Amino acid sequence: MPRSSYRPPKIPEMTIRRLSIYARCLLQLEEDGVKSVSSQELAERFNLNSAQVRKDLAYFGEFGVRGIGYYVASLKAELQRILGLDREWAVVLVGFGNLGSALFHYKGFTRQGFKVVAIVDENPAKVGREVERVPVIASRDMAREVKARGIQIAILAVPVEAAQAVTDELVAAGIRAVLNFAPTRLRVPRDVRLKNVDLSIELETLSFYLAKSAR
Amino acid sequence: MPRSSYRPPKIPEMTIRRLSIYARCLLQLEEDGVKSVSSQELAERFNLNSAQVRKDLAYFGEFGVRGIGYYVASLKAELQRILGLDREWAVVLVGFGNLGSALFHYKGFTRQGFKVVAIVDENPAKVGREVERVPVIASRDMAREVKARGIQIAILAVPVEAAQAVTDELVAAGIRAVLNFAPTRLRVPRDVRLKNVDLSIELETLSFYLAKSAR
Repeated sequence: MPRSSYRPPKIPEMTIRRLSIYARCLLQLEEDGVKSVSSQELAERFNLNSAQVRKDLAYFGEFGVRGIGYYVASLKAELQRILGLDREWAVVLVGFGNLGSALFHYKGFTRQGFKVVAIVDENPAKVGREVERVPVIASRDMAREVKARGIQIAILAVPVEAAQAVTDELVAAGIRAVLNFAPTRLRVPRDVRLKNVDLSIELETLSFYLAKSAR
Repeated sequence: MPRSSYRPPKIPEMTIRRLSIYARCLLQLEEDGVKSVSSQELAERFNLNSAQVRKDLAYFGEFGVRGIGYYVASLKAELQRILGLDREWAVVLVGFGNLGSALFHYKGFTRQGFKVVAIVDENPAKVGREVERVPVIASRDMAREVKARGIQIAILAVPVEAAQAVTDELVAAGIRAVLNFAPTRLRVPRDVRLKNVDLSIELETLSFYLAKSAR
């Protein structure tokens, strides 16, 4: 087979999500002073599936050491590198209502290296303020700011009606990944990653189980 | 094989999540006046995988009609019934800071039949108020309210430090499903469903792709 025809395997998104979880578990183990761990121990302690752990990791290389398992610190570092968490990502947060404000104060983002460097809102009462030293800027200045700072990631917490227009403008300004909280389907070019967070889907998995046990 | 040994297949959680998505797609088709749809058409229009659609639905029965595909209205109704969305679920929202407030106003929940009937907060300035006719009650009245109204679902938007104690109290009061936004691991009894929403995992799937294309 000619070399040029080789394509790396497509990695399922659920594998990526699980890598995030493994990285958290390893961080916890590291804080507890654990040096090495087998996939079985990891699975038992964090209620994971050990075969799944091995399969997920196998996409990225051979991390296990026979008779030892995984070295906690080095596997954690490796997963963080794979997930792009070994650097800081500048993020623009668009929409600073209740949800935007909650997301801004959400500790998890900062801990993982995502730093909101600009907040965009339409409300003149908010524009010009600083929130924890991050400036709130007007919508008309959004594209310029994104370009000037080379921001690649946007978190969208705007009303449904505004979401597509804001997205188009962000993409034109150079945004390459959008985390969308507006409950609507957005169109983005193929080379832009879009992730929709639909909070009601989470509730529906719960009602499924409640409804099932009531049947 | 004796009948009592039959166990229904365990349904993957991702299948449940996808059923939620299919139900939304069918609703959209219904609004557009589409009467029937094949799994291929469904897949193409909403960027799904048609084999996956068929496999997911097969857990619950035979919905397709040869030469026609699926009847949009009846499949939608069936999926909503399976997901427990054919009824209203009373929900208690615990924590009414920025995130709690954002979740309360999140339109998606109500649309799917989840109705917040009580808000719990510790802040005396908030307790006793009503928000869109929903009362804000004090923590000490939470258990009584949950019991009195037979509430089964709780949304948790409290600080990490409070999350486990609140959960224990909710479970003791009869809550059977918890949607947790506090970035911490909670312990619940086996018969209580817990769903953690970790918003930074969503961002990490994005940074994975950005980091990958930069390598």
